[in-house]
Amino acid sequence: MSPGDLFDPDSDDTEDLLMAATYRALCEHGYADLTIERIGAEFEKSNSLLYHHYDGKDDLLVGFLEYVLDRFEADVPSERTGDPWADMLDLLDHGLAPGIEAERREFVSAMIELRAQAAHDPAYREAFTRHDRFFRERLASDIREGIESGDFRDVDADRVARLVHTMFTGAMTRRVTADSDDGVSPLEGVREEFEAMLAARLLPEGEDE
Amino acid sequence: MSPGDLFDPDSDDTEDLLMAATYRALCEHGYADLTIERIGAEFEKSNSLLYHHYDGKDDLLVGFLEYVLDRFEADVPSERTGDPWADMLDLLDHGLAPGIEAERREFVSAMIELRAQAAHDPAYREAFTRHDRFFRERLASDIREGIESGDFRDVDADRVARLVHTMFTGAMTRRVTADSDDGVSPLEGVREEFEAMLAARLLPEGEDE
Repeated sequence: MSPGDLFDPDSDDTEDLLMAATYRALCEHGYADLTIERIGAEFEKSNSLLYHHYDGKDDLLVGFLEYVLDRFEADVPSERTGDPWADMLDLLDHGLAPGIEAERREFVSAMIELRAQAAHDPAYREAFTRHDRFFRERLASDIREGIESGDFRDVDADRVARLVHTMFTGAMTRRVTADSDDGVSPLEGVREEFEAMLAARLLPEGEDE
Repeated sequence: MSPGDLFDPDSDDTEDLLMAATYRALCEHGYADLTIERIGAEFEKSNSLLYHHYDGKDDLLVGFLEYVLDRFEADVPSERTGDPWADMLDLLDHGLAPGIEAERREFVSAMIELRAQAAHDPAYREAFTRHDRFFRERLASDIREGIESGDFRDVDADRVARLVHTMFTGAMTRRVTADSDDGVSPLEGVREEFEAMLAARLLPEGEDE
C-alpha cells in the first residue's frame, strides 16, 4: 500500500486532513524530531482541534497508526484472485521486492520508526500486535483455503503464516535500513529462495518448482 | 550475545566505561529521550572527555554501534562446532526463540531503535550495512563449508544466507515490538517451520526431517 492509496487528496474530512498532515510531518522530520507543532504546521485547519483531541505527539501517532491499519485492513482482501498460490506469489512480489520506490520508501521508513517505539511503549505495541494479528489471520485463512481446495499440502497454516509475516517484517526493515553492498541489494535473491522454500512446503509432491 | 558479554564490569578502560554508560542510558531512556547529558550522568569519568570526543548523541551512538559490532564480530566465530547443520540449528535456537530474557530484551530493543535511525541517517545505515555484511558473509561461508563437505546440497550460499539473515531481523523486531496474542508468542512455531524448510533446502535427499 502506498501513501497515495492511504490519503485521498480530495478529502475535506478533518481526520483525513490531520492524518495526511501527520504523515507529511513524520516523513519530513522523522520520529525523534517530530513535534505536535510541526504536525500543526502541515495541518490546514485550526490547530486548536489538534490540541483538543490529542494528548501529545505519541497519542496522535498511535491514532495515526490505527487510521493507517484501518485502511490497510479494508484494502488488502480485495487483492485475492481465487488461486491460492498465485495470491501467495503476489504477496512475495510485494513483500520481498529487492528495490523500493522513493515514495514508498518514505512510508516504510516512517512505519519502521513507529514500530521501534513499540519496543518500550505499550500503546504502540498494542497497535502493532493488532496489525500483526490481522495480517497473520488473513494469511492463515488464505493458506487454509488452499489446503481445503487441495492446492496446498496439509501444513500448520498459523505457523506458516507467522513465518511468512516474520520474513516480511525483516525484509521491510532491511530494505530501508541497510544500503546495497557492492551494488547488491540487501534482499538480492531472497524472494527467489523463499518462493522455492514455500513451494516445497506448500505445493503437493510433483508441483514443486 | 548478551550485554554481560559486551561490557566487562571490571574494565577501567575509558572507552569501555563510556560505552557501558551509553548502553545503560539508552536502555533507560530510549533513543528519542536520550541526551548526551543523560549519558554523562551514567559515565563515571570526567564528562569533558565525552564532549571532547563526540559531536552530539548520534555521533556517540554510531560509535557505540561500531563498538558493539566489533565485539560481536570477535565473538561469533568461536561458536562453530565443525558440523554445519548443528551450527545452523544453534543459530536458529538463538535467532528464532519464541521468548527472550529481560536483559536481552532491553538490548534488542535498543538495537531496534538504533536500526530505525538508519532509515534516515546514513551514518547509522553504514554501520548496519557493515553488520549485515559480516553476518551474511559468516553465514554464507558456513553454508559453503557444508556444501564442500557434502553435508549440504549445492545451493546459492549467498542467497540462503541473506534469507536467513532477513528472517532473523524480522524475528528480532517482532519479538520486542509485538505482544503475545491470546497467549501465543509472535514467533510461536516459526523456528520449527523454518527448520523444516531449511532442512528440505539444505540437506541431501533422504536426510530431510
